Amino acid sequence: MIASPFLLYLGRTADALGIKTSRGLAAFRPEDCVGEFRHDDCPLTLGLPRLGMEEAAARGARTLVLGIAGPGGRLPADIVEDAAAALRAGLNVAAGLHERLRDQPLLAALAGERGLQLFDVREPPPNLRVGTGAPRPGRRLLTVGTDCSVGKMYSTLALARAIAARGIPADFRATGQTGILIAGAGVPVDAVVADFISGAIEQLAPERHDGGWDLIEGQGSLFHPSFAGVSLGLLHGAQPEALVLCHEPGRAHMRGLPGRALPDLAECLAANLEAARLTSPDVRAVGICLNSSGLERDDALRLCARTEDRLGLPCTDPHAFGVEAIVDLLLCRAPSRLDTNVSN
Amino acid sequence: MIASPFLLYLGRTADALGIKTSRGLAAFRPEDCVGEFRHDDCPLTLGLPRLGMEEAAARGARTLVLGIAGPGGRLPADIVEDAAAALRAGLNVAAGLHERLRDQPLLAALAGERGLQLFDVREPPPNLRVGTGAPRPGRRLLTVGTDCSVGKMYSTLALARAIAARGIPADFRATGQTGILIAGAGVPVDAVVADFISGAIEQLAPERHDGGWDLIEGQGSLFHPSFAGVSLGLLHGAQPEALVLCHEPGRAHMRGLPGRALPDLAECLAANLEAARLTSPDVRAVGICLNSSGLERDDALRLCARTEDRLGLPCTDPHAFGVEAIVDLLLCRAPSRLDTNVSN
Repeated sequence: MIASPFLLYLGRTADALGIKTSRGLAAFRPEDCVGEFRHDDCPLTLGLPRLGMEEAAARGARTLVLGIAGPGGRLPADIVEDAAAALRAGLNVAAGLHERLRDQPLLAALAGERGLQLFDVREPPPNLRVGTGAPRPGRRLLTVGTDCSVGKMYSTLALARAIAARGIPADFRATGQTGILIAGAGVPVDAVVADFISGAIEQLAPERHDGGWDLIEGQGSLFHPSFAGVSLGLLHGAQPEALVLCHEPGRAHMRGLPGRALPDLAECLAANLEAARLTSPDVRAVGICLNSSGLERDDALRLCARTEDRLGLPCTDPHAFGVEAIVDLLLCRAPSRLDTNVSN
Repeated sequence: MIASPFLLYLGRTADALGIKTSRGLAAFRPEDCVGEFRHDDCPLTLGLPRLGMEEAAARGARTLVLGIAGPGGRLPADIVEDAAAALRAGLNVAAGLHERLRDQPLLAALAGERGLQLFDVREPPPNLRVGTGAPRPGRRLLTVGTDCSVGKMYSTLALARAIAARGIPADFRATGQTGILIAGAGVPVDAVVADFISGAIEQLAPERHDGGWDLIEGQGSLFHPSFAGVSLGLLHGAQPEALVLCHEPGRAHMRGLPGRALPDLAECLAANLEAARLTSPDVRAVGICLNSSGLERDDALRLCARTEDRLGLPCTDPHAFGVEAIVDLLLCRAPSRLDTNVSN
């Protein structure tokens, strides 16, 4: 396990989606986050105390988490320098990038000299097997998305908590670096060898007989030309009985691809259901989660209501309005209208 | 480059599809194959002289090619033993499995002592980039399949040769171990880190301005629950203007998955076209390739004709009847009926 408390790294990131790992830890493990590290030219903040490396160590931080994620998972030289400074200040370093901390000679040497640890969260487990698609017992829900970084992890965590709150066993199954850092376990599915994508998810959410749910975090989108292969293998491996579609209204283009429009919600959901039927013939959609943080509350509620009417499924913003309507439908009770679930 | 001539390994394989790499080399580089190595309990043969390791070395073989492929790409202990025997006889060893030759201490030590080489063909290139789906110039055809091991590589090679024979530049782009061994270059797409599937193919078949064709070898199937993620990323990265669907009539079930039926040809083709439109909106199907080696010639011809009528596309067995009808349609000439292309 990665030693906490954490110092969350923002570095020089100017893209709000680029710090989603740091943001996720701040949101879901706030008690473990003592501060944020950012350079003067970083316009972002998580609202945590801004600390230098030594300062953070003095306040009890044990690990610098490089909670940033750019396309390709590279580890640029300036970030290596910052990680080295953290080690010199006595902090362990954790990262979830494709390029490994331990492959940086400077970092490996400093960690070795000082008895500190480098955690490469995106290291896939050894001995993965090829998936089979064989039917397996257990109740599984997968979140899918119109795009990357639209709130799949957040929605999945919210669903797991809401189901557990009803006294039903429910486990969040992490598939990305942020989810793994939050849950302390999982499989970084985009980092496995391509042949093992579906097999890795079959291992992450194996057969289950306690009547409980595996809530599996989706990745990417069937409509994202960079990552759709990961999304499809994940969908087949998850063998979900239920899908929840996640979306961020108003996003101008697919993540990282200016000019490429997002898919229509109905088209995206239909494509996911069709693909899912290969391993889960009776799969059904149970809800839509919108990340409406860019909207006023009233506009968000109206958009949820319109989307419900258009798609015939409960639609909510998990952060603003909870996920009870989706859980109702999932657990086969007649779903309540969203507005009756929201305290006004 | 891997030193030839080759000794082709069959080992104890009893599954004809399991030796497809050895078979592919025997078919497409016969001048480089001096013999086959098989144990007494191996019921298969490529029709080459059966040789022991020393015997093969005495006949000039330079490299033992472990041309076998089981699910998961494992390297079992008995095959390691055979590879060690080859090294002791003075042969290099090549393999295209996920488990690397060089990670076997015995093999690494023997190769080091004797100045011999271990070739791990399935090693992906370094510095892969994430795909973008950005439109790129060039003419590209991709073979897709109802299943694994239905003749996609064979069909792609046949198409490349047939186009080149018409005086048009045409390059076979290999994506699997057999194709890479035949072509001497390529990207083992099922071995890349999952995030880079489409990007790897964008690099394998980059923009092209000479009016020539890239013929890209497909892998797996959108309908194979073990590998569909690879197939989808490959499809998006290939950005093909033309698809050829490959199929083996009479196959009882999806490769490695008893009980799982193959998809209908029309359904499979429609799903591939739909998915391909994400990066290639004007993609079209130009033909069907059947591996009819299990049928009598007349039955094969009748099946091709029926399939042509049903799908409205040229249908052939590349091995038995060539691919001229498909190339006609691809190059925008009115396709001839298959039976007029076959010499009787």
